[in-house]
Amino acid sequence: MHDEKNIERAEIVTVGTEMLLGDLVDTNTVWISQRLAALGVGIYRHTTVGDNSERIVAALREAASRSDLVVTTGGLGPTSDDLTNACLSTLTGREMVEYQEAREHVDTMFERFGRTPTANNYKQALFPEGTQLIPNPVGTAMGALVEWEGTLFATLPGVPTEMKSMFDATLEPLIRARSEGSIVSKTLHFAGIGESALVEKVQEFLDATDPTVAPLAGQGRVRLRITTRAATEREAQEKIAPVEKEVIARLGDYYFGEDDETLEGAVGRLLQERGATLTLAESCTGGLLAKRLTDMPGSSAYFGEGFVTYSNESKEHLLGVPHAMIVDHGAVSEPVARGMAEGARRVSGADYGLSVTGIAGPDGGTEEKPVGLVFVGISDSEATFAEKLDLTAWARSRDSIRERSANRAFDLMRLRLEEN
Amino acid sequence: MHDEKNIERAEIVTVGTEMLLGDLVDTNTVWISQRLAALGVGIYRHTTVGDNSERIVAALREAASRSDLVVTTGGLGPTSDDLTNACLSTLTGREMVEYQEAREHVDTMFERFGRTPTANNYKQALFPEGTQLIPNPVGTAMGALVEWEGTLFATLPGVPTEMKSMFDATLEPLIRARSEGSIVSKTLHFAGIGESALVEKVQEFLDATDPTVAPLAGQGRVRLRITTRAATEREAQEKIAPVEKEVIARLGDYYFGEDDETLEGAVGRLLQERGATLTLAESCTGGLLAKRLTDMPGSSAYFGEGFVTYSNESKEHLLGVPHAMIVDHGAVSEPVARGMAEGARRVSGADYGLSVTGIAGPDGGTEEKPVGLVFVGISDSEATFAEKLDLTAWARSRDSIRERSANRAFDLMRLRLEEN
Repeated sequence: MHDEKNIERAEIVTVGTEMLLGDLVDTNTVWISQRLAALGVGIYRHTTVGDNSERIVAALREAASRSDLVVTTGGLGPTSDDLTNACLSTLTGREMVEYQEAREHVDTMFERFGRTPTANNYKQALFPEGTQLIPNPVGTAMGALVEWEGTLFATLPGVPTEMKSMFDATLEPLIRARSEGSIVSKTLHFAGIGESALVEKVQEFLDATDPTVAPLAGQGRVRLRITTRAATEREAQEKIAPVEKEVIARLGDYYFGEDDETLEGAVGRLLQERGATLTLAESCTGGLLAKRLTDMPGSSAYFGEGFVTYSNESKEHLLGVPHAMIVDHGAVSEPVARGMAEGARRVSGADYGLSVTGIAGPDGGTEEKPVGLVFVGISDSEATFAEKLDLTAWARSRDSIRERSANRAFDLMRLRLEEN
Repeated sequence: MHDEKNIERAEIVTVGTEMLLGDLVDTNTVWISQRLAALGVGIYRHTTVGDNSERIVAALREAASRSDLVVTTGGLGPTSDDLTNACLSTLTGREMVEYQEAREHVDTMFERFGRTPTANNYKQALFPEGTQLIPNPVGTAMGALVEWEGTLFATLPGVPTEMKSMFDATLEPLIRARSEGSIVSKTLHFAGIGESALVEKVQEFLDATDPTVAPLAGQGRVRLRITTRAATEREAQEKIAPVEKEVIARLGDYYFGEDDETLEGAVGRLLQERGATLTLAESCTGGLLAKRLTDMPGSSAYFGEGFVTYSNESKEHLLGVPHAMIVDHGAVSEPVARGMAEGARRVSGADYGLSVTGIAGPDGGTEEKPVGLVFVGISDSEATFAEKLDLTAWARSRDSIRERSANRAFDLMRLRLEEN
């Protein structure tokens, strides 16, 4: 391409009235932002506009006046509401012309779906003159790369799977090629420690400018992202390595994984490494732990069955928790958490039993046992124990109590597995 | 307030570097957009900027040039990164002054949390001169209402619970008071029918301009939003009623509820009305149905226990599905779906048993039983039956298969309950 410029600043423009009205959540912008941030590209602004030519052209013009790269999502379909490439043509003054390659792509994709394209569908073969096409391996809508007045425009479809595969295959290599050297970013995950306590232990890295280290906290977990830029990828990795090593050394057991790792992912990995199996006994989380475990493909290797024992009776008849124990201590208590984990392990024959019982609210709290009181139980061949969680600070949010309980339960399970 | 203008067009400006980098998902903008759309206010644009004074001021200025109302979220905290109100002061040329009421509010909230404010915290008492304060019943950050050159600015905090309660208590009544007449909006929910088939049955309402009827589809559900404006709220409701009645009449059993209703909510409501209980036996959904059922406060009234029977063995030993049946038909089959529902009902003593077994992928599919093949089973005192779902079109997305399976399972349960 001509007029190539390094890419330092980017903006994302979302096109779609559904997004503007809040009918659809714009997950694309979050995903693209994370990618651009990891590539070391500065992000200046996100803009969302409806399916209206005048407003799309205005948003594109404004974005171009500020940034080297403008990524758009949405508005590439075959209907009269799909306006993105036509608006790019209006802005740049370059006529819409048919691209043979794009026309053939429409035919190929329709053939694959066993359907016949109508005249409308070939609208997806029209692009501003001078466009470099972005291949779409998944759908009919190819994207456009258009260079104009020092700004590179990239138009991507709104369907997330299509958008992501096109970004990965075409846009990311192009951004890497047009960045000064290589940018490498690594995310480290921690649990069981608050953000401020964690930051205190690694403050000087957060104050440093290269590599940069940025924290982010949520629902009982903290992430640190280490980012640097160097002449080569290897050099960048070599700059990250000592920081990573020292940060992990200082935070020890709080560290549970890097990049896309999750707490349930860490538990799954450790179980697989040990050839062990896990069962669940859930009261207040009501299936949330099981759901998160089975979100992961391949979880059947270590998870065969789980129990949602929401009522007191079910804790007794499914898990064998003694009636007297529930009467004496209440269903939300340390002995019952232990009894649930032990019972689930015994009934299922799994190596590890993990239980949660608590008061997620908004009702059901008492002075003695308030909303936010939760117990996590763990049972294995060597021991059975429970931990009390005080989540009363989140008493106003049932979701937060459930998510934080699940996070802490998986984290305790991870720590237990790492001991064994 | 002086210079009052009707509110017809609005924009939302999100302030926060975490949002720009994709570290936090901006659910606030979705929520505010839905509210504004329901109030009949046109939404022109969403903008996200980082914690940078110059860029925040520019975004506010641009938004004001287009819209009657600019709602901001974020940047109201006590740290040096929190810049929204100061930027509003820069834009309007109105000095930041301390508001006694806001200072006292900081003291009151700190007292409630049992802590002592530092000098920094009183930054949250500073607002541009001429501000009308927006009370915050939940947190320390009050918001500002500032009228400037024909635009009303409303600054709200980024914490969703605080933002929502402030929008509801202060902003919504103000928008209603400053709209031409009343706007009323109603959402009707449907399941078990595709978007195009549904639209065909009610096309003339979608073509009409008053009330407007707009469809939105996702994961096996379709919503229709009916909106109108009239001199009074009652008049608006009277315009909606006949459209609503006719739409529901034409769509019959596909209709399952209005406004915030969900499929699991409809199931819960019907169970409560009948004084009946439900149990679950989940294979491929792995706890997702139980999780969704217990997301709802009060679900213990009709849900006592559920089984996550992920492995074949667990279907046998927990639910009593015959070994030979699994060998003969496979775990993903109609007989096993029936056996799971029946077994769960028998073991739990619940009135209804609901089961799901299928292949969610990405692995585990065969030519005969491909990824996306799912069976839903239902058992009650009168009958036990199963339905086959073909979700092979979503074979690339494990999440879609699981969500759609759960939706269809809840919908079949709803239909069965409505029969009884």
